[in-house]
Amino acid sequence: MKNKAITSRDVDFAKWYTDVVKAARLANYSNVKGCIVIEPNGYAIWENMQKILDDMFKKTGHKNLYMPMLIPENLMKKESDLIEGFAPEVAWVTQGGQKELEERMCIRPTSETLFSDYYSSIISSYRDLPIKYNQWCNVLRWEKETRPFLRSREFLWQEGHTVHETQTEAEEETNRMLNVYKDFYENYLAIPVITGRKTEKEKFAGAEYTLTVEALMYNGVSLQSATSHYFGQRFSKAYDIKFLNRNNEYEYGYQTSWGTTTRMIGALIMVHSDDNGLVLPPKIAPTQVAIIPIGNDEKVINKVNEIKKQLDEEGITYYVDNSEKSPGFKFAEAEVNGIPVRIEIGIRDINDNKITIARRDTREKLVESLDIDIKSYVRNLLNEIQDNLYNSALKRRDELTYECHNLEEVEQIMNTKPGFVKAMWCGDEACELKMKEIKGTKSRCILDNHEHIDEKCVVCGRDAKEVVVWGIQY
Amino acid sequence: MKNKAITSRDVDFAKWYTDVVKAARLANYSNVKGCIVIEPNGYAIWENMQKILDDMFKKTGHKNLYMPMLIPENLMKKESDLIEGFAPEVAWVTQGGQKELEERMCIRPTSETLFSDYYSSIISSYRDLPIKYNQWCNVLRWEKETRPFLRSREFLWQEGHTVHETQTEAEEETNRMLNVYKDFYENYLAIPVITGRKTEKEKFAGAEYTLTVEALMYNGVSLQSATSHYFGQRFSKAYDIKFLNRNNEYEYGYQTSWGTTTRMIGALIMVHSDDNGLVLPPKIAPTQVAIIPIGNDEKVINKVNEIKKQLDEEGITYYVDNSEKSPGFKFAEAEVNGIPVRIEIGIRDINDNKITIARRDTREKLVESLDIDIKSYVRNLLNEIQDNLYNSALKRRDELTYECHNLEEVEQIMNTKPGFVKAMWCGDEACELKMKEIKGTKSRCILDNHEHIDEKCVVCGRDAKEVVVWGIQY
Repeated sequence: MKNKAITSRDVDFAKWYTDVVKAARLANYSNVKGCIVIEPNGYAIWENMQKILDDMFKKTGHKNLYMPMLIPENLMKKESDLIEGFAPEVAWVTQGGQKELEERMCIRPTSETLFSDYYSSIISSYRDLPIKYNQWCNVLRWEKETRPFLRSREFLWQEGHTVHETQTEAEEETNRMLNVYKDFYENYLAIPVITGRKTEKEKFAGAEYTLTVEALMYNGVSLQSATSHYFGQRFSKAYDIKFLNRNNEYEYGYQTSWGTTTRMIGALIMVHSDDNGLVLPPKIAPTQVAIIPIGNDEKVINKVNEIKKQLDEEGITYYVDNSEKSPGFKFAEAEVNGIPVRIEIGIRDINDNKITIARRDTREKLVESLDIDIKSYVRNLLNEIQDNLYNSALKRRDELTYECHNLEEVEQIMNTKPGFVKAMWCGDEACELKMKEIKGTKSRCILDNHEHIDEKCVVCGRDAKEVVVWGIQY
Repeated sequence: MKNKAITSRDVDFAKWYTDVVKAARLANYSNVKGCIVIEPNGYAIWENMQKILDDMFKKTGHKNLYMPMLIPENLMKKESDLIEGFAPEVAWVTQGGQKELEERMCIRPTSETLFSDYYSSIISSYRDLPIKYNQWCNVLRWEKETRPFLRSREFLWQEGHTVHETQTEAEEETNRMLNVYKDFYENYLAIPVITGRKTEKEKFAGAEYTLTVEALMYNGVSLQSATSHYFGQRFSKAYDIKFLNRNNEYEYGYQTSWGTTTRMIGALIMVHSDDNGLVLPPKIAPTQVAIIPIGNDEKVINKVNEIKKQLDEEGITYYVDNSEKSPGFKFAEAEVNGIPVRIEIGIRDINDNKITIARRDTREKLVESLDIDIKSYVRNLLNEIQDNLYNSALKRRDELTYECHNLEEVEQIMNTKPGFVKAMWCGDEACELKMKEIKGTKSRCILDNHEHIDEKCVVCGRDAKEVVVWGIQY
């Protein structure tokens, strides 16, 4: 039985995606063009993501603060690459309190400018370093084509911004945060990722280099999932972030920034979900278990209370659906909303000394004896679901990862069953542009220490030293 | 000994306030006019406030979501009082992605419009009600005069927006949330408040009525601290929020909204803090205890580790200052940052079997035996500090609360030792305007069920039935 409100994923992936967003009530279109309402079901996932990532950031020594949302044009212009990169996609405030502003201000598309301006005012000595701050906020980029969570004019994110005494420390930070994201994706979102360095063409405007976390969606399309930038002294020179170093000389600080967004909710949908709606890994699901009593016999109520107590003891989150809807309706609702485990219990089950436990990932219904130790049973099942989702995603990712030796192979793959294509690259931007002609294929990242596939560039045939992962992107 | 970076509170209160903000590193001026950087010390307080309030909101059945930050002008205009009330203080986005927009959009000063627009699309039956959603976000109001936390163009807040089947339910909600705020102010922020209804002149633009939480600062100035609005059907009619009621007839929903802001950080400063910097009630302090080892003798290190273990067991938050600064510097830093309890321990103390515990509120240094049960001692001390701060604030508030019977009395008080003035009011706006001539004195709220002070209005001498609290406001 299939959810009728949801188009099949293999028939029309784009339609399936928006159907799942709608059916699971994750987001709603708003009357503000290009912006969505993140509904409670979607926002609860974001809150969970924030909580886990925030703990990880705090454990790696970061503190949160809050910067203004508006950036005066002059401040924005100080770093030339940044303004060039972002100018086409910012929104400008030109009127405030019924007056024209003397200087227009943009709504932050990212906050390197404000952080740098602030850092220049608070840093004077190496004793002030490192500074490792982060903010959770909204940003705005004037996108033309938008899709819920994946590309929205306004989105929510976090942006870490750090300043260090030395290049080494700053580069260590850039790597450390990349690995925090990788850890989060793999161990919480159950999404396997590849990591590497962006090409010059694809790096962040103003960065020396950009490290990236890349994931593959069910349909073989790539998603840039988090980035970590090393800035060197580019911003510190533009914004005058100087400190007295250990030799008593003025030196410009070494900076990094790193971020990830509500786009992660889109990744969860496109990697794990199915034709029956949302599927959530237990570690990120706002609610892990749906308890659905059938009928309201006292024995059923007592059993439900007993189960609740057990789950509480184990720290497992749940809800009990006591509403007036039919059991079938409640089952479907728990399913479409991606609740990892569903427990069904009625008087007939109790008389038969049985309990039915349904897992969302495989949709199996497990009929067990009422005598099982429910808390350890559910804990094990949640772990199994978490592992299964990761392993299924990994298997699919590996099936859709190819090594290509010439453009014809790339073309054939991208036209039939797209995915990650590993191929050699000479380092020339012209070859990236050539590759783009194949269904918009872009370089995802340059792999570190990867065994060479060939000696020649897959595009131009010249000598090549870099193994690049290519893909069609969201 | 007094902190030299801080002006005395009794000499220049306004200067003292900004000195404390700066010395405790709560906020920094930014190069964005009228906007501040909320620094980590300030933001950590906000995170604590959010956590506690968010729990309270969830326990009263509310869920979080997220709305767009931009509001198209046409959508904003649908409720005429709202646009009139907010038009003078909104910022307009007129350009996006290098193009002039066809319709300008304002940055949300508050989100009744967007919530109402969304609610009209998701509500169709009484079965959908009540809807009780909240959002944590930034808002922008183009203020001319700004002060850190108290009045800033951009500030952070939460705004709850609910829809109910009946007037009764909606009014209950309005009251419930007022009491949540009162509870939070009194039991967490240790700030006594008065509650009541705003006059027609002072109510929220678009509300049927506004309930308010009002607090008195150290200098006798009033601070509107949180508000809860009953909208009746004003917005539901403007935005077409109709539902099929239990009689199978279409009816407009009954709405409320309620909010509080980062201004609360300003209230904490102006109620509790002193000439030595910030003073924080233990229940809201991000860190409750500063442990300052003197020297690095092994015995000292062992003792510190033992204390840490004890505090961990009790769930008390702390930091250990192992930096290279001098003990005196560390003491002063803990003090200016408002850490409620400071533990000082050196080898001499250990040899004398002593430990020094300093409380921030009274600045007493308590010398105790090393044999005390440190965890229950500190727990009790934190409770005592929390109570003492509340009681001191209450005593001061009561000392600065007056009953006035004529304008001369009001004038004398507001000119010498201002505070809350209770006086009778006839209900006429002209009398409020007359009162405003006395140093800008405004009605704070109309008290419910308060014993009448006189029979006549304090301003015009006509019959009066309402007891109003008046004050000079921030």
